Amino acid sequence: MTANLLLQCPDQKGVIAAVSQLLYGFGCNIVCSDQFSDQSTSMFFQRITFDFSDIVIGPGNTAILERAIAELATRYGMKWQISYKDKIKRLAILVSKQDHCLYDLLIRHRSGELRCEIPLIISNHPDLKHIADTFGVPFHHLPLSKDPGSKEQQEAALESLLARERVDVMILARYMQIFSTAFCERNWQHTINIHHSFLPAFEGARPYHRAHERGVKIIGATAHFATAELDAGPIIDQAVTRITHRDSVEDMIRKGRDLERLVLARAVRWHLDDRVMVYNNKTVVFED
Amino acid sequence: MTANLLLQCPDQKGVIAAVSQLLYGFGCNIVCSDQFSDQSTSMFFQRITFDFSDIVIGPGNTAILERAIAELATRYGMKWQISYKDKIKRLAILVSKQDHCLYDLLIRHRSGELRCEIPLIISNHPDLKHIADTFGVPFHHLPLSKDPGSKEQQEAALESLLARERVDVMILARYMQIFSTAFCERNWQHTINIHHSFLPAFEGARPYHRAHERGVKIIGATAHFATAELDAGPIIDQAVTRITHRDSVEDMIRKGRDLERLVLARAVRWHLDDRVMVYNNKTVVFED
Amino acid sequence: MTANLLLQCPDQKGVIAAVSQLLYGFGCNIVCSDQFSDQSTSMFFQRITFDFSDIVIGPGNTAILERAIAELATRYGMKWQISYKDKIKRLAILVSKQDHCLYDLLIRHRSGELRCEIPLIISNHPDLKHIADTFGVPFHHLPLSKDPGSKEQQEAALESLLARERVDVMILARYMQIFSTAFCERNWQHTINIHHSFLPAFEGARPYHRAHERGVKIIGATAHFATAELDAGPIIDQAVTRITHRDSVEDMIRKGRDLERLVLARAVRWHLDDRVMVYNNKTVVFED
Amino acid sequence: MTANLLLQCPDQKGVIAAVSQLLYGFGCNIVCSDQFSDQSTSMFFQRITFDFSDIVIGPGNTAILERAIAELATRYGMKWQISYKDKIKRLAILVSKQDHCLYDLLIRHRSGELRCEIPLIISNHPDLKHIADTFGVPFHHLPLSKDPGSKEQQEAALESLLARERVDVMILARYMQIFSTAFCERNWQHTINIHHSFLPAFEGARPYHRAHERGVKIIGATAHFATAELDAGPIIDQAVTRITHRDSVEDMIRKGRDLERLVLARAVRWHLDDRVMVYNNKTVVFED
Repeated sequence: MTANLLLQCPDQKGVIAAVSQLLYGFGCNIVCSDQFSDQSTSMFFQRITFDFSDIVIGPGNTAILERAIAELATRYGMKWQISYKDKIKRLAILVSKQDHCLYDLLIRHRSGELRCEIPLIISNHPDLKHIADTFGVPFHHLPLSKDPGSKEQQEAALESLLARERVDVMILARYMQIFSTAFCERNWQHTINIHHSFLPAFEGARPYHRAHERGVKIIGATAHFATAELDAGPIIDQAVTRITHRDSVEDMIRKGRDLERLVLARAVRWHLDDRVMVYNNKTVVFED
Repeated sequence: MTANLLLQCPDQKGVIAAVSQLLYGFGCNIVCSDQFSDQSTSMFFQRITFDFSDIVIGPGNTAILERAIAELATRYGMKWQISYKDKIKRLAILVSKQDHCLYDLLIRHRSGELRCEIPLIISNHPDLKHIADTFGVPFHHLPLSKDPGSKEQQEAALESLLARERVDVMILARYMQIFSTAFCERNWQHTINIHHSFLPAFEGARPYHRAHERGVKIIGATAHFATAELDAGPIIDQAVTRITHRDSVEDMIRKGRDLERLVLARAVRWHLDDRVMVYNNKTVVFED
Repeated sequence: MTANLLLQCPDQKGVIAAVSQLLYGFGCNIVCSDQFSDQSTSMFFQRITFDFSDIVIGPGNTAILERAIAELATRYGMKWQISYKDKIKRLAILVSKQDHCLYDLLIRHRSGELRCEIPLIISNHPDLKHIADTFGVPFHHLPLSKDPGSKEQQEAALESLLARERVDVMILARYMQIFSTAFCERNWQHTINIHHSFLPAFEGARPYHRAHERGVKIIGATAHFATAELDAGPIIDQAVTRITHRDSVEDMIRKGRDLERLVLARAVRWHLDDRVMVYNNKTVVFED
Repeated sequence: MTANLLLQCPDQKGVIAAVSQLLYGFGCNIVCSDQFSDQSTSMFFQRITFDFSDIVIGPGNTAILERAIAELATRYGMKWQISYKDKIKRLAILVSKQDHCLYDLLIRHRSGELRCEIPLIISNHPDLKHIADTFGVPFHHLPLSKDPGSKEQQEAALESLLARERVDVMILARYMQIFSTAFCERNWQHTINIHHSFLPAFEGARPYHRAHERGVKIIGATAHFATAELDAGPIIDQAVTRITHRDSVEDMIRKGRDLERLVLARAVRWHLDDRVMVYNNKTVVFED
């Protein structure tokens, strides 16, 4: 039985020793540890995977362990977070009409690449219900209209659905709507969006059209946390591919789909595996 | 003996046949031909390399051939341009204090990768004269001051130097100055700049610092024609490399140097080989 | 209405002019043309897409056009082949137990990326029938046993199925069987296999295990025509990705799936679009 | 003042805690730590950079620290190695007639990318002496002949030169000779070679010619330790680039030069920075 412990605190002497000593003292074995000291901000980040099968205070008694970590955290000014591997995360996928990222996530989930449950798919359009049906995932249609108040109502319905289904992570798999600022501020830390450009180039709408117009030789895709400022949240991963003058906007859209799939899946996988930490609107990603 | 013929005109039936028939009629052999029809603008672009060793109108008599091409061009509304392989292009390299692109171009030239002469290196600083000396290339120091009129005087001196040395192509190999609008308008078509970001992200100054601040996971470099609008000229080539949270600004600068070298060298090589055509502030690049 | 014409012949003067003149004479418009002269073998390759909507000899009367091409071909020693865009190719997918390439091809087909019909999926195992059902494609189970004669019988059944369904292209989408030499010799020109290594490294079985053992820092995938010599047929496309010491064989298998999907889809797309020519056990690929 | 400590031992509980506790106890601050547990061999690898400016046993008194590490190492069955940052490594470059890797290493060294001294360049040919002169590095010509005993004599001269100049690392920068088995066995751990293919494809001579003949779509370069078995030593890094049917052997050689430069420089940089550990003919590389 393993757990992932994420830490961040001001860089200081003895942190690594203190944490590893604490875990060792409890009879836990560090399976894997990554750390990073950011010179520019003097911050320290660490991800530790440890095995607590032989925890000395009795099997599964992690509450006391957590209390000890909390005390250590106070001493060092740490933010910390722990995830137990046997507590599977629950993931909601939001889509509009495009299906490629949805298919991709469902297939990877089925193949065992993504360690999570997918209890629901949500869309503002009914078009992709057949895919949800094929994979046996409940589909919720939360439509949006131009009416004043429609967005607020839809977001409220969405949040109550997420609460009811105990959703841990929300994936915007080409969900073509912009959330309200208040919604983003409540949810961005567990909400991953895929944007179809190598941000910060071509923020906002129709990035492939603008890339075509500018005549770039490389297009990209970016997975990021969906903060209130559009396409400006912490970047988790990016990928690019070469294009030439021969590529029309349609070709870019086609080639871009492969990038979007890859990048989104990688970001989701890392997030599910507690590999992504945020600080100063940037991410520390301990890749696998 | 070969020549490169570049054509662009509105797309229309029979162009390819007409041109190939004309060359065949003169006894020229098409060695290589690339064409591209842009659906979005209905424009046609072609690059033909042909061997005129057996030209029927007598060896080297290309004037008559050019007259025939000009007539055809009028008929089809073509812009065209011809380069003879035995007329080696002359290249000027402009630098400031950073040496990596300068070294790279000189070494590639020496190894035979770049088909050109390099009759001069020009700088606003004296620092890199020793490299010019090592490679036996005359070095011209054209300093700039804060005085009013200094930029105009320097640009005038520069242009007279380029004229005197019959320079065909000017390479801004990390030349850290911005030319006047008038200078750019006269010279951009034969002036290639290397910018240290994947444009249009991070136009202008200190792109690596801004990339670090934004937390991107990929950095890039862009070679483009230096038009009057800063970093907005037609893009010839781009390249990128992955970075992580571990990369400081200094690491980006180091990794970026390799990108800048590669991309600039490729753009220069293609331009010298008549592989780059410009239309609508974009390029058609017939890569080798 | 367009057609793709593929040509190969010994390189010689006037070929391009002759072909483009012939098409122009028939009232056909060349939409796109790519050619390549191989210096090392003195061979010439060309792919022409032409519009024959206004063919002078009456709409759809391509028989006379083909006769003219055949005559030209005799004169220049050409091999040639023509495909009409309205004659959609028919594709059979062969699989064993792994589903990622199958899913990928079916989803790309549904999204319109692959211009073909998929009238059947064939497997030596029944495992993936549910996917065929989901996408509404008939599934044929052709089992194999250790009995002497089983392979010959299965191959005979397979070939009669391909004939009955008028299959133009056969895709081995992780089909884990080796065909007999006779079968390969009859079928290789329309049979594309995906191998999970960057050939010629790790030909044969268990390439990821061997890559792990050798400690390579890059893994790859290769799409190639399935000739009789195992994994030695003409390579259509390859792709690679970086790995590190952290990647176990299972990680390689997971990362490799993305490569296999991408490379196989690209090869299939190019082949369907008549962009791949074979000569001397190598391919000329006119990429889109 | 910092040092790099490299460890490898059978994976076991408490190692990380023990080492970090030991360093902490001596008043050393861990600046950076990377570790890796190889599941397939149950081996543990760690690289620790620590600051010993405030070492409690008196400034610079690292002998006692080393004795403590040695004791710990015995307890855990560790192999270990320590490098102090103020002890600059000394590097010898071996070349034959090709200059691109030599130029590249010298320019990177001058720009501060490679933390080392380069006290000598050695060659079996006199051709590149002018480059050594330009950069002010002593050049030694150690010729080879077909005479029996010539190789042994040359290797003996080489080793005495390396000893006299206190060389820590030897770089084969396109040195086109094969060392004797005995020489390799004595020197491979500090000898890095660049091979111009993505090993294990195209081991041995003329890899670009063989890549051209096979019709691969990707070429590569590999930096590895030069063990006695030709091109089979532990791989440190690899890089690749796409090619097409248009690329002749000469084009491959040109494009390959860029790969060779990049990969060799990266491997040398990592080795100088104590980032490369060897186990089972494979490397663990803690990349920067």
